[in-house]
Amino acid sequence: MAAQVTPQSEDFSRWYNDIVYRADLAAQSPVRGSVIIKPYGYELWEGIRDALDLRFKATGHRNGYFPLLIPESYLRREAEHVEGFSPELAVVTHAGGKKLEEALVIRPTSETIIGEAFSEWIQSWRDLPLLINQWSNVVRWELRTRPFLRTSEFLWQEGHTAHATGEEAEEETLQMLEIYADVAINEAAIPVISGRKSNIERFAGALRTYTIEAMMGDKRALQAGTSHNLGQNFAHAFDIRYLDENNEQKLCWTTSWGLSTRMVGAVVMAHGDDTGLRLPPRLAPWQVVIVPITRGDDERETVHASAHALKKELDDAGIRTHLDGREGLRPGFKFNDWELRGVPLRLELGPRDVANNSVVLARRDVPGREGKTGIARAGVTQVVLENLQDIQENMLASATSFREANIHDVRDYAGLREVVDAGGWARGYWAGDDDDERRVKDETGATIRCFPFEQAGDRGACLLTGAGDGEIALFARAY
Amino acid sequence: MAAQVTPQSEDFSRWYNDIVYRADLAAQSPVRGSVIIKPYGYELWEGIRDALDLRFKATGHRNGYFPLLIPESYLRREAEHVEGFSPELAVVTHAGGKKLEEALVIRPTSETIIGEAFSEWIQSWRDLPLLINQWSNVVRWELRTRPFLRTSEFLWQEGHTAHATGEEAEEETLQMLEIYADVAINEAAIPVISGRKSNIERFAGALRTYTIEAMMGDKRALQAGTSHNLGQNFAHAFDIRYLDENNEQKLCWTTSWGLSTRMVGAVVMAHGDDTGLRLPPRLAPWQVVIVPITRGDDERETVHASAHALKKELDDAGIRTHLDGREGLRPGFKFNDWELRGVPLRLELGPRDVANNSVVLARRDVPGREGKTGIARAGVTQVVLENLQDIQENMLASATSFREANIHDVRDYAGLREVVDAGGWARGYWAGDDDDERRVKDETGATIRCFPFEQAGDRGACLLTGAGDGEIALFARAY
Repeated sequence: MAAQVTPQSEDFSRWYNDIVYRADLAAQSPVRGSVIIKPYGYELWEGIRDALDLRFKATGHRNGYFPLLIPESYLRREAEHVEGFSPELAVVTHAGGKKLEEALVIRPTSETIIGEAFSEWIQSWRDLPLLINQWSNVVRWELRTRPFLRTSEFLWQEGHTAHATGEEAEEETLQMLEIYADVAINEAAIPVISGRKSNIERFAGALRTYTIEAMMGDKRALQAGTSHNLGQNFAHAFDIRYLDENNEQKLCWTTSWGLSTRMVGAVVMAHGDDTGLRLPPRLAPWQVVIVPITRGDDERETVHASAHALKKELDDAGIRTHLDGREGLRPGFKFNDWELRGVPLRLELGPRDVANNSVVLARRDVPGREGKTGIARAGVTQVVLENLQDIQENMLASATSFREANIHDVRDYAGLREVVDAGGWARGYWAGDDDDERRVKDETGATIRCFPFEQAGDRGACLLTGAGDGEIALFARAY
Repeated sequence: MAAQVTPQSEDFSRWYNDIVYRADLAAQSPVRGSVIIKPYGYELWEGIRDALDLRFKATGHRNGYFPLLIPESYLRREAEHVEGFSPELAVVTHAGGKKLEEALVIRPTSETIIGEAFSEWIQSWRDLPLLINQWSNVVRWELRTRPFLRTSEFLWQEGHTAHATGEEAEEETLQMLEIYADVAINEAAIPVISGRKSNIERFAGALRTYTIEAMMGDKRALQAGTSHNLGQNFAHAFDIRYLDENNEQKLCWTTSWGLSTRMVGAVVMAHGDDTGLRLPPRLAPWQVVIVPITRGDDERETVHASAHALKKELDDAGIRTHLDGREGLRPGFKFNDWELRGVPLRLELGPRDVANNSVVLARRDVPGREGKTGIARAGVTQVVLENLQDIQENMLASATSFREANIHDVRDYAGLREVVDAGGWARGYWAGDDDDERRVKDETGATIRCFPFEQAGDRGACLLTGAGDGEIALFARAY
């Protein structure tokens, strides 16, 4: 913590790593491509997890747990799926001191093993819809890794559902994307854009993939959650059938959707600044930190007693409060430390404050003197609650302005190149095919992040081919 | 569900499997030694998890997450530890399409990788105590498996802490065992006995292992949670040191403690009867099920409206309530179904009840007519709350009587054999060595479950050797 954080403008990647490790979100691990999620990072994930879990349950989903190890042959049953995941698999060849007859892979995702289970569990239309979610770890052997954003092992939830009709499956897919967007926007204060993925960005084996796309502080895009309408592909591969009300055998329609610890990285990169992390109050493990300020021993007792009473009052109001009682550290050091860790509100309490029945309040989202105000001790809980609400809204508003300022409408390929080269997101009509899309990616580094749900109305001329039936697409370089 | 559950008296093992699969706690999986935890079983685990997590946090522990895959060499650093776990390891030899330079094992437990991390995180006495918990999956390749009780993969929590002194480590070890006992007794209604494990039953690498031991319905013992004082063994193996207040390098003292999805199996086997599962209200996913009873369509509307209003009233009071609105099933079928699933309270609501402003209440813990009473609709929430409380207490009381009736004091080896052969637990003084203990195990099938914390006072003559400094020990056949 003694060393400075690399400024974002100098090297955004180094800034990110500095924050992740110095704010104690994660620690490096001896295992290639994995990090250790430290408590401060894990508590951030717990906040995201609880927000999702509540919404999953409210929409009728139930949690279950499926095996970590999947027979290799399962993955081969869906052709696109195995092609998509084969290069990333970790394989168990030996167990219990013996070579296994069939190798087992560590799940990279669980469509196959859950598809097999669904085929046994589902008999008739009465068993539908089947709405299951799993909180788990998965392993995808990645060559280039970054804490939270891309690691060989990560934590996530994966929802898996089966339905009687294609319409219901599509509704479910969209409903779950909406839940992701709700949590991203209203809990994480990240103004994600919801839309449909292009063909080449689809999940391996899906009919359609929907996504929430977030703009990071360096203007690169981050896919923060995806929801897949799997059509009948997995139902076919795993023979997931049901007897309908007329006693006819029908193939089910399935969906899957996932959101991972990547979201922790999104929170860091969407909100952080050169001083450190900035956490949205609704997800912050500690929403308020109290720093008592004392010089002599005589002051100590009074100030600490007052600080403890203050903490108790805030705790009782349901505000997650930490009292920094560390000794031998200067107040300035503590201020920097908590700014680095992104705690939304700091309350400073010195002997003069105690005498005057006041407290100094400092907002993390408003730097320096401007964010500091003296408030009366009597009304502190109410003021803290109002400020937390205001910080939450302010963070969403400023991330939204930043996003809007950096999305540019383009009419042609030259325009797209210009915008992307300047680091922004390009928005324009697109009617190209997969090869056209690959060409744009090769030449500019940008991919179609999504066809946003919000379309202008009519279709327009494709920015690359000029064909007239283009849909609005968002292009950006992405994590 | 059409087929009968095997009676406990006929074959307890088959009874257990019948319950687990028919009550929808788990499903068989295609992966050897693994089961799928179905939502009803997972929700039971969520109840146990939340009860523990609350207590861990209240005692200053914080959750984190460490890698699933551990370099094989790590396990070798602690001699007893590698010897204990080697035969059960699942090994990843290939990943990302290549053979790995060093094989990785799937964690059977995380002392090694967490020990390595602690050695980096801990610098000075200011960093102590370090109190970390992890919720995760682990893999131990078992030859003979049973759902929940012993599976190749299981879910658990593992706590890992480091301390400045041996006294503090011992205090922590005992505190966590107390938390396990609290959850077992007061949430799961299982009257576990807390005590110390014998040498040969100690955790591989521990100085002392403490355990909570539960008596199942067939009187066999089940180790339901363990807490280990690791002394300085892992600190030594992983070089976990700190600078004390006098600037001297000291070795830390560490602990670890774990409780797993095995506890779900314990709930089944401690409380279930020939009719099915019996769930303690505090852990039951659904505490109350409402079964509307109707014949004609004209009755249907009135009764269902009344049932929905009843559900809402109970939901609002925080009672987990399910309304069984399935059509085309006879009430008797539904009653059996919910008794099989162990829901503590059933409310039956027919047209006559609606007309009379009454409800029929049936307790799962009191079979037949005796457990059924008509109650006034007006006071139903209060009566339900009182009954749930009473069922919780009654289940603990009857499990405690059962336990007390089946523990017998013995003075000599003949007495021990007689008690164990009759299926009970033998309690007597023990001063034998490891070989003596192995002999008892070989000859009787019973192991020392623990030296209970509750000792009679003085020591006594060993039931096997006659040596006079025996401690009271509990012997039983165990899962």
